[in-house]
Amino acid sequence: MSESSFESVEKTLEAHVPEAELKELKRILYGKDLKKLILPQSAVEAAQDRDFDLQGYVFEAAPEQLRPPKIVRVGLIQNKIVLPTDAPVLDQITALHKRVGEMVEVAALCGVNIVCFQEAWTMPFAFCTREKGPWTEFAESAEEGLTTRFCKELAKKYNMVVVSPILERDEIHGGTLWNTAVVVSNSGNVLGKSRKNHIPRVGDFNESTYYMEGNTGHRVFQTQFGKIGVNICFGRHHPLNWFMYSMHGAEIIFNPSATVIALSEPMWSIEARNAAIANHCFTCAINRVGTEYFKNEFTSGDGKKAHHDLGRFYGSSYVAAPDGSRSPGLSRIRDGLLVVELDLNLNQQIADKWNFKMTGRYEMYADELTKAVQDDFKPNIVKE
Amino acid sequence: MSESSFESVEKTLEAHVPEAELKELKRILYGKDLKKLILPQSAVEAAQDRDFDLQGYVFEAAPEQLRPPKIVRVGLIQNKIVLPTDAPVLDQITALHKRVGEMVEVAALCGVNIVCFQEAWTMPFAFCTREKGPWTEFAESAEEGLTTRFCKELAKKYNMVVVSPILERDEIHGGTLWNTAVVVSNSGNVLGKSRKNHIPRVGDFNESTYYMEGNTGHRVFQTQFGKIGVNICFGRHHPLNWFMYSMHGAEIIFNPSATVIALSEPMWSIEARNAAIANHCFTCAINRVGTEYFKNEFTSGDGKKAHHDLGRFYGSSYVAAPDGSRSPGLSRIRDGLLVVELDLNLNQQIADKWNFKMTGRYEMYADELTKAVQDDFKPNIVKE
Repeated sequence: MSESSFESVEKTLEAHVPEAELKELKRILYGKDLKKLILPQSAVEAAQDRDFDLQGYVFEAAPEQLRPPKIVRVGLIQNKIVLPTDAPVLDQITALHKRVGEMVEVAALCGVNIVCFQEAWTMPFAFCTREKGPWTEFAESAEEGLTTRFCKELAKKYNMVVVSPILERDEIHGGTLWNTAVVVSNSGNVLGKSRKNHIPRVGDFNESTYYMEGNTGHRVFQTQFGKIGVNICFGRHHPLNWFMYSMHGAEIIFNPSATVIALSEPMWSIEARNAAIANHCFTCAINRVGTEYFKNEFTSGDGKKAHHDLGRFYGSSYVAAPDGSRSPGLSRIRDGLLVVELDLNLNQQIADKWNFKMTGRYEMYADELTKAVQDDFKPNIVKE
Repeated sequence: MSESSFESVEKTLEAHVPEAELKELKRILYGKDLKKLILPQSAVEAAQDRDFDLQGYVFEAAPEQLRPPKIVRVGLIQNKIVLPTDAPVLDQITALHKRVGEMVEVAALCGVNIVCFQEAWTMPFAFCTREKGPWTEFAESAEEGLTTRFCKELAKKYNMVVVSPILERDEIHGGTLWNTAVVVSNSGNVLGKSRKNHIPRVGDFNESTYYMEGNTGHRVFQTQFGKIGVNICFGRHHPLNWFMYSMHGAEIIFNPSATVIALSEPMWSIEARNAAIANHCFTCAINRVGTEYFKNEFTSGDGKKAHHDLGRFYGSSYVAAPDGSRSPGLSRIRDGLLVVELDLNLNQQIADKWNFKMTGRYEMYADELTKAVQDDFKPNIVKE
């Protein structure tokens, strides 16, 4: 069984572990058993026709006396690029719009209120090449670019909030590039944008060659369906980043990503889920799928020969809840749409149960962190 | 298959999943394949005779030109209480000393340099009862108590650092109680103590009735075998707590714990492992084993009838590495000793690869956190 034919952990467990043990195994690995979401037959058939994985789950909360349930359906979309990376730039963008557009149509059939795409979804993840052209041509205005116009149409048509992570060109600040998520309200207006706070310098992820650490802080977007934050890719590894979105009120934190098997797969199921637990919120981790080949060879700073790809993106997008439960992952191999129905009341219910914010001693940490970043910081080390 | 006969996730996977898929499954779930540590036959036999699970693994690092490997063997001990909870206090303590002492003897046979016991290891986890007596009689002086004297003997005899988490009575500050880990150097001297920073108010964990949040900060102990920190139990849920031990230089952070199936089991494998990844260090999560029955019934604030126990502690102690790999867990049911050989050079190697501290933007977070704890903090919420 090679890494490329292994579709998902869940399918392997279900194929081999006897029912009695499987139940206990899944409880330990995934938390409480989630109900499957009943999806319309039209959506199931469309997903088959269009060849993508479609899964749906429900995260329930207890009924309360004073608050009605706060139900939202969220869609996560993961996909391969459509055209070869040396196709004309506009063709590549248009093909991705078409592919993701047909997936969003299925999301609409499933009643999705908020959809989020993968990081830099309109382009191959070309930062491995360290070439500036033609890749920087994929950059667009967050407010008025082709892709934002496309997302505004989707948002209006389907009454859906669209989170659209793109490579941004910021014309009013000297035309600099950013890695940015544009949040489009279900009204069709741009609600705002949120830039990637932490930029990797690891493996083939040479993004620091193209753009800097984001300057939009940890703003949270109040949508009709709940308060959302967007923690892009590498910020997943920084617990303080998740935490600060939560402190600003995020009920759902999206983590649109692009990461490959050899670099991060064993960490994938850990980090977003830990963030959901630690911050009493929902987290949505999205990773792209497939292998992207580039015409010019490049090296990876690992002593190996030059090559044309940076490894395989393993999909496995999932949603984690504040109670420690999580959904199964989408396919490691295929495009996919994960639809989850969340009752956001669960956040406060779990916060009241576990009290991590109440017991967090943040004043102490604010002091300690302020000291720790000083040049003359003296670690507290006890010696014999 | 009931939850009580399910010994471990790893045993279930190995029993049912075919070899070819198992390899891939374990890579995704556990990270890189760890070598088994060859343990002396005398240790294996002693563990069988004394009826506890004994497992050993090696976490390797790459060779470097200027630094020799920094090898340390660490032992994690998990155990049931020995006598019924209504036996005389001193008999209970003495029986636990004897039981854990014979496990430490095996750790010594395995070449362990640093051993850590579970939280409040000299007593039943009686805080569920909310009764003060006789439970507060288990409290001891960190510097001169019976248990510290016992640990000093172990430390000298075996040339081993002993981390001994106890209920502490602090005579020089009004005789108050604390939940404290005493760190005994391999010289036999008390190196210092580290108190539990975050106190739970969840389920039957009524510890806030007995002791307050620790006042010893995030000190780190420089031992002959490496720099260690001790993050006791509930601090596991607080990423800032792990982080601050790491900022003070901890290479290994122990998490001696006591937690039960219904409360936390799906979270257990996530939190300490996330901390190892996020902080470029090793983490060691230790949980006690078995069900403890108390003579007087108590309620749990959940509307259910009064009862005599707080559920089953599920063991499953494990070690996680900065590269995202982890050891299998010890038994969910039996006492156990987990021996791991660590090359602490891995911490810097992974830090240089992933750069989470370099890319952490801690000045920004120090500012943001300082603002967030102010009474007049205004979350940054974008509305339409």
